[in-house]
Amino acid sequence: MKILVINAGSSSLKFQLYEMENESVLAKGKVERIGMDSAILSYEPTGKNEIRQVEEILEHTTAIRKVLDWLVHKEEGVLGSIKEIQAVGHRVVHGGESFSSSVVVDEDVKQEIKRLFDLAPLHNPAHLLGIHAVEANMPDVPQVVVFDTAFHQTMPSQSYLYPVPMVLYKKHKVRRYGFHGTSHAYVSDRAAKLMQRPLDELKLVTCHIGNGASCTAVLNGKSYDTSMGMTPLEGLMMGTRSGDIDPAIVPYTMGKEELTIGEVNSMLNKHSGLMAISGISSDMREIVQAMGTGDRSATLAFEMYEYRLRKYIGAYAAAMNGIDAIVFTAGVGENSADLRAAVCRKLTFLGLELDEEANERRSGEERRISTDSSKVQVWVIPTNEELVIARDTHQLISDRIDVV
Amino acid sequence: MKILVINAGSSSLKFQLYEMENESVLAKGKVERIGMDSAILSYEPTGKNEIRQVEEILEHTTAIRKVLDWLVHKEEGVLGSIKEIQAVGHRVVHGGESFSSSVVVDEDVKQEIKRLFDLAPLHNPAHLLGIHAVEANMPDVPQVVVFDTAFHQTMPSQSYLYPVPMVLYKKHKVRRYGFHGTSHAYVSDRAAKLMQRPLDELKLVTCHIGNGASCTAVLNGKSYDTSMGMTPLEGLMMGTRSGDIDPAIVPYTMGKEELTIGEVNSMLNKHSGLMAISGISSDMREIVQAMGTGDRSATLAFEMYEYRLRKYIGAYAAAMNGIDAIVFTAGVGENSADLRAAVCRKLTFLGLELDEEANERRSGEERRISTDSSKVQVWVIPTNEELVIARDTHQLISDRIDVV
Repeated sequence: MKILVINAGSSSLKFQLYEMENESVLAKGKVERIGMDSAILSYEPTGKNEIRQVEEILEHTTAIRKVLDWLVHKEEGVLGSIKEIQAVGHRVVHGGESFSSSVVVDEDVKQEIKRLFDLAPLHNPAHLLGIHAVEANMPDVPQVVVFDTAFHQTMPSQSYLYPVPMVLYKKHKVRRYGFHGTSHAYVSDRAAKLMQRPLDELKLVTCHIGNGASCTAVLNGKSYDTSMGMTPLEGLMMGTRSGDIDPAIVPYTMGKEELTIGEVNSMLNKHSGLMAISGISSDMREIVQAMGTGDRSATLAFEMYEYRLRKYIGAYAAAMNGIDAIVFTAGVGENSADLRAAVCRKLTFLGLELDEEANERRSGEERRISTDSSKVQVWVIPTNEELVIARDTHQLISDRIDVV
Repeated sequence: MKILVINAGSSSLKFQLYEMENESVLAKGKVERIGMDSAILSYEPTGKNEIRQVEEILEHTTAIRKVLDWLVHKEEGVLGSIKEIQAVGHRVVHGGESFSSSVVVDEDVKQEIKRLFDLAPLHNPAHLLGIHAVEANMPDVPQVVVFDTAFHQTMPSQSYLYPVPMVLYKKHKVRRYGFHGTSHAYVSDRAAKLMQRPLDELKLVTCHIGNGASCTAVLNGKSYDTSMGMTPLEGLMMGTRSGDIDPAIVPYTMGKEELTIGEVNSMLNKHSGLMAISGISSDMREIVQAMGTGDRSATLAFEMYEYRLRKYIGAYAAAMNGIDAIVFTAGVGENSADLRAAVCRKLTFLGLELDEEANERRSGEERRISTDSSKVQVWVIPTNEELVIARDTHQLISDRIDVV
């Protein structure tokens, strides 16, 4: 079965085409700057060079059509006909409390995604555009949505409720949802397999550290707590997001600087984090480079980032009364040996012993970076959210075909 | 030397009179509802019954005068003359970055306390009223101010800075200050003595859990990190304060409920915490009582409160790479065996073993509640902020006399 995986943003669209027989990627690419006369489409059939085109693409329906055209292109295409695509899987950021697993798209599902616009104003509207764009191009192909929040729906109430008036939960859905769920689920599953232990007997802390970053306490295979909250702002320090701060800073700053609600949100989401402290970059690679030249602001930014991550790992050890393994994933987690080393060197009280050499080794592979005698294992596991989306889509569509 | 210790609030004033020769309390009491025609003055000379008077007391100067009148009262008094009071020590909540220790009051100090009104609008103005009221009644007596924030001025920048635009720190003093410093300092000092180990070699987590609550990582005798932040709102869940939440909840709620800055501050400081979740009380005793009758909201409130405290202890273990001891103090910390047990029973991964019997024993005494073989010691140590204020005042005034 061939499945197209789509991650639609407000002005972008990423895709991967999967052959599920062997879970291989046939082609992938993205469309950026949708809505502009100089949109950029990149298309990369597996094993061949990437093709880039700059042209006018004003909305998502056109973007999908252009992608499909490339997939069946007579020289560069990987499909004989669009009809070979049997299903489309979408990433959807916010599933609220309605969705604790992936679902096949129908009218009700679309309505619910729409009802959640308020909680994910930057993401859910774009995802719905993506779903409609697929419908317009391939009206008969079933679609599946895979939610970033779904994995975290197992959290107990003591983790997901905030100590604020209950009316905010009942009336306005204020609670912790958590994000990056697809990634946390994928790497915890992989970790158990690599550790050769049953997932449902493990205490894991999974650290998805990219430009956005979150940490999850995975207890017996289920999300028990996670650092992102009602929105992706809470928790760890990130590239441009503050993460945890004294909530009183929000009204204080609004008063002092006469900021609107939109402006204070923008400040905390787009102008904080590594960027604000270093004054240089939101990118950990550039921070580490600047540290090498003795830049003090970059060093401070790194120290805060590391310190706040390490505290979350400690907090989740206390939450689960121990940890069997820590998993690092996503851009920074997979690639920054400096960050991993800084975190692990100060967690020796857990019996954790870093294998410094294994940590330094550059590799895109899954690997253990703790010593044989370490009481807490540490793993680097490249995440693969697209594969999870493809698998969930495959599973749900196969089930449906079986029923029919 | 006799020293009067004063803790002035906006409509209240607590006092203790110390004889520093033996650090004994000669008398104590408080004035409540200052500004009303039915203010309440209570006065308790040590070893005698408390005396209560209801009368009109419209401002702090009158309140102090009434207190002094009782101290020299011919039957109930403990002094022959007011002149025996050689110094007055005040609790001041916010010392900003200017004060890392207690100081003798002069014009500059008063100006600085005033400049900090913005950061502690509920507290510092009242403290300054108290200082002025003492001046008006005892113009020649030296005064000392002891700051709740001072102990935390040793925090490294990675602990005290927030990952928000640096202009907020430089222009508006947005940083972590921490509070309850006098208490955290006192109990960590006591813990080291009781453990018979040098304070400057210890890793302690001190938990000051009262109606307000904060946790401090005390590394080698110095505050390394603390849960309260720019204001006393951040950190642990408290009686009526939320503690940590997704900062995005603040603008979201302001928008949804059309709240002003003042209203959202009030919601998070006065209508959240235990009160909001239990719907019953902000008082842990009443929460535990309601749990006994099977009240589910009370149980949830307790679980959230305990869980959030436990996570902070784990975070601070990671911050310091281990813990030698945990100290519980203040109203809830000293009295709630249930809370202490719930926290400690799920920290066995640290090698912590609770002595259940010692924990249950009711006592106002300093006591260890971990077993002999526990790797992490756990102590209950009644706090005594007034004594620290008296000692600091005594020290500074004695130094001054020596110099003269």
